[in-house]
Amino acid sequence: MMELGAYLHDKRIIVENTLKDVFASFKTTPGMLRDAMEYMLFSNGKRIRPILAIAACEANGKSSDDLLPVACTIEMIHTYSLIHDDLPSIDNDDIRRGRPTCHRVFGDAIAILAGDALLTEAFRVMADNRYTENISPKILKQIIFEIATASGADGMVGGQVMDVLYDGKEGTKNILNYIHMHKTTALIKASVRIGAIMGGSKTRELKKFTKYAECIGLAFQIMDDILDAEGDEELVGKRLKKDTGKQTYIKHYGIMASKIKLEQLIEEATKSVEFLGDNAIILSDLAKFLGNRAA
Amino acid sequence: MMELGAYLHDKRIIVENTLKDVFASFKTTPGMLRDAMEYMLFSNGKRIRPILAIAACEANGKSSDDLLPVACTIEMIHTYSLIHDDLPSIDNDDIRRGRPTCHRVFGDAIAILAGDALLTEAFRVMADNRYTENISPKILKQIIFEIATASGADGMVGGQVMDVLYDGKEGTKNILNYIHMHKTTALIKASVRIGAIMGGSKTRELKKFTKYAECIGLAFQIMDDILDAEGDEELVGKRLKKDTGKQTYIKHYGIMASKIKLEQLIEEATKSVEFLGDNAIILSDLAKFLGNRAA
Repeated sequence: MMELGAYLHDKRIIVENTLKDVFASFKTTPGMLRDAMEYMLFSNGKRIRPILAIAACEANGKSSDDLLPVACTIEMIHTYSLIHDDLPSIDNDDIRRGRPTCHRVFGDAIAILAGDALLTEAFRVMADNRYTENISPKILKQIIFEIATASGADGMVGGQVMDVLYDGKEGTKNILNYIHMHKTTALIKASVRIGAIMGGSKTRELKKFTKYAECIGLAFQIMDDILDAEGDEELVGKRLKKDTGKQTYIKHYGIMASKIKLEQLIEEATKSVEFLGDNAIILSDLAKFLGNRAA
Repeated sequence: MMELGAYLHDKRIIVENTLKDVFASFKTTPGMLRDAMEYMLFSNGKRIRPILAIAACEANGKSSDDLLPVACTIEMIHTYSLIHDDLPSIDNDDIRRGRPTCHRVFGDAIAILAGDALLTEAFRVMADNRYTENISPKILKQIIFEIATASGADGMVGGQVMDVLYDGKEGTKNILNYIHMHKTTALIKASVRIGAIMGGSKTRELKKFTKYAECIGLAFQIMDDILDAEGDEELVGKRLKKDTGKQTYIKHYGIMASKIKLEQLIEEATKSVEFLGDNAIILSDLAKFLGNRAA
């Protein structure tokens, strides 16, 4: 079995090449729109979501070749959400992935439209025979449903709205939980699930993959909260200590309890995929990596 | 054959009931997000796009029952585009469909996110077995591809970007043509095409439906430009005489030539669907209606 560092490196290159291939398919897109989309999409992203999809598929002993373009659409959706979240009327961030945010470079109007285009093109790619001809249309429909549900009003956007509405407010643990489960975890869960579905997992196994994903999704967000409080701005690549008014795990549980919860979640994630035997190694290493990252 | 006024009235009710049904399927959506989406979706829209899809399907002698939810997703996409276009950083409009625009009521952040949610949920509905179980997954994939392509970087968003970039600039007839064909016509074309596809049209007929749609799409936009110059603000339901810096048909060709072009397009549209015989009546009446509207 491959070492995780090499795995992440290899898959990241594959993901980025696939994304470049997608961009080669644009025909009449205005140059500035394309530039704005590419600017944020090809910045220094970790590509965690598509790699999780790939790893979940491969953990079933299946090739991830056919899944690849679909896995990349999740990165497109994640990127659109970053562009919109950074806007002055939402989180008003000026640095992302170590560079000025999209609206700081292209202006608010183009940033809004670049986000819209990335989201729409994600669904175009899923339905484009150039990319998904080898996936049965029935499975593809299920995958589109998973991704759209995780990204929409009952998913990521719902979480973002609550994040906005409760910024600077007292909030409750329930509100915090809603925000974390929707804003971050929903799309991470969809990534793992579509990988597992493409790998051939049926209901019982899918449930275990889902548990794994819920644990790492929440762990990922708690780690984000910890990094915001204690991280190195240069490594993380965005302004930190900005979340003072936000609903964070640290605010509601304190830093010690957050670190303990993080450990527990990583352990739970690892246990959830034990049924895969040796095939689970990348997924468990990924869980540990996500709970230990410095960026 | 039914009279057009009654047809529009009946179909509008059917479309709105289907949209209400879609909103009943939300589970955990934050109340304010839902309110913001509903506020603009259930304002006084003409529902032209879904009705065009329905009419194109029925012109093939087929029932539009199975198409209905998919046709409604186009209204959701159209509505998201209005919400984002009205934002202060894009067109900065404060009145739409006779009411304050979404961001004027809910703030910019929620308006951006409500647009994002409407766009995402449109694709969720297309892939949701509750709504599209009776459509073959293969046809459905084709339909998702049509709608996403028409709405994305090579479609509506591309047109909107050019509209923003050339606001207040000299521009050329080519630029104007790009904006009109992408910003407005692309989604109208997709509406007609998905209706025709669901009605069973094959390549040759589909080409004629496409021609019809291109003509009415452009006619629709020219009529918009004429209404902006000469219309009644109360009837149209938005601020007029705002397009002075915009690339409009009137700016590049003058008002007389615009009116002549409009007539020609309606005639061309009507001719394109003559092959349908008596089944073409609603489509030709719709073309005439769109070229003659006061709102």
